[in-house]
Amino acid sequence: MARGRRPGNQDTREAVLAAAREVFADKGYDGASIRAIAAAAGVDPALIHHYFGTKEQLFVAALRSPVNPADVLPGVINGDPDRLGERLIRTLLQVWDSPAGGAAAAMVRSAVTNDTMARMLREFILKRLITRVLAEVVSDPAEAGVRGTLVATQIAGLIMIRYLIKVEPLASAPAEQVVALVGPTIQRYLTGALPTA
Amino acid sequence: MARGRRPGNQDTREAVLAAAREVFADKGYDGASIRAIAAAAGVDPALIHHYFGTKEQLFVAALRSPVNPADVLPGVINGDPDRLGERLIRTLLQVWDSPAGGAAAAMVRSAVTNDTMARMLREFILKRLITRVLAEVVSDPAEAGVRGTLVATQIAGLIMIRYLIKVEPLASAPAEQVVALVGPTIQRYLTGALPTA
Repeated sequence: MARGRRPGNQDTREAVLAAAREVFADKGYDGASIRAIAAAAGVDPALIHHYFGTKEQLFVAALRSPVNPADVLPGVINGDPDRLGERLIRTLLQVWDSPAGGAAAAMVRSAVTNDTMARMLREFILKRLITRVLAEVVSDPAEAGVRGTLVATQIAGLIMIRYLIKVEPLASAPAEQVVALVGPTIQRYLTGALPTA
Repeated sequence: MARGRRPGNQDTREAVLAAAREVFADKGYDGASIRAIAAAAGVDPALIHHYFGTKEQLFVAALRSPVNPADVLPGVINGDPDRLGERLIRTLLQVWDSPAGGAAAAMVRSAVTNDTMARMLREFILKRLITRVLAEVVSDPAEAGVRGTLVATQIAGLIMIRYLIKVEPLASAPAEQVVALVGPTIQRYLTGALPTA
């Protein structure tokens, strides 16, 4: 869940989250440190750990993501590598079709109008989700970029058409039908042959 | 091109375009008539034909689309039906990689913040573009909805990642590489087997 481990002082929490958004958006997930965020918020790094836990948990809270990748990724990654695409889409639909879908939609909408949140969301999707799925099946790092951004195109478009614009009949199509239709696309982007230019 | 055939009186033109946006967004492309738009704008229908030409030309002008589907669709539709997906993506990239791409991006951005433009754009993409491509290869109308919205997911996501957010390496990938990668996805959505739920 996208809340810290303890309620804590509300003003301090908000100051930390605001600083985290700036630093994550500026430096990316990997480049951001709890120490830098603490400095930007004017608090002790230990306080951030105390309120939010790990760097990833802080990131998830700052993004207002209803889901922590650490909670859902094992279910995507574990299993037949030839069905990774299916499992990715199935997990995506489980989150978005659940009550958490409303919060996920709010997260995406805030990224449309706010550049800091847009950069956070891009880091989240590419670095925290897709890169970790790719690591399971792509051995050549030179291929990871194209494969990862192709996966991102299909996921972003599916979320837009099914959940944000809600275009029928896809918006009401049963999840397993969508998994069967879109899963193979993801699989091909993950493990299919890459044509050269 | 997204301009009318003659300059005309600027205020009248703008009044007609504003009325056209409202009526197209409200009734959809098929339900909107030049007569209803003329009534909403308080002008004679003949004046609209004189300024803008056909209903489709008026629609394109109201949406501020840099491209009229009638100009690009023949190049997509004509040819081997098994390579329809490739031709669709190639044509899409030709428009977005050209100077018209800036106007296309502005059109999409206006749809994000303006509900009327959003409904216009949805009509444009689904009814004026995808439906006409589908008509070439889909004989069962019950399948057209799912196929068309699936195509829309891949197109919308590709535009978002390559042209609006500009995520590398996809943003700078050569067009023919993108055609080779994404074309088969479109083809499968157009003509592949449809799993039942």
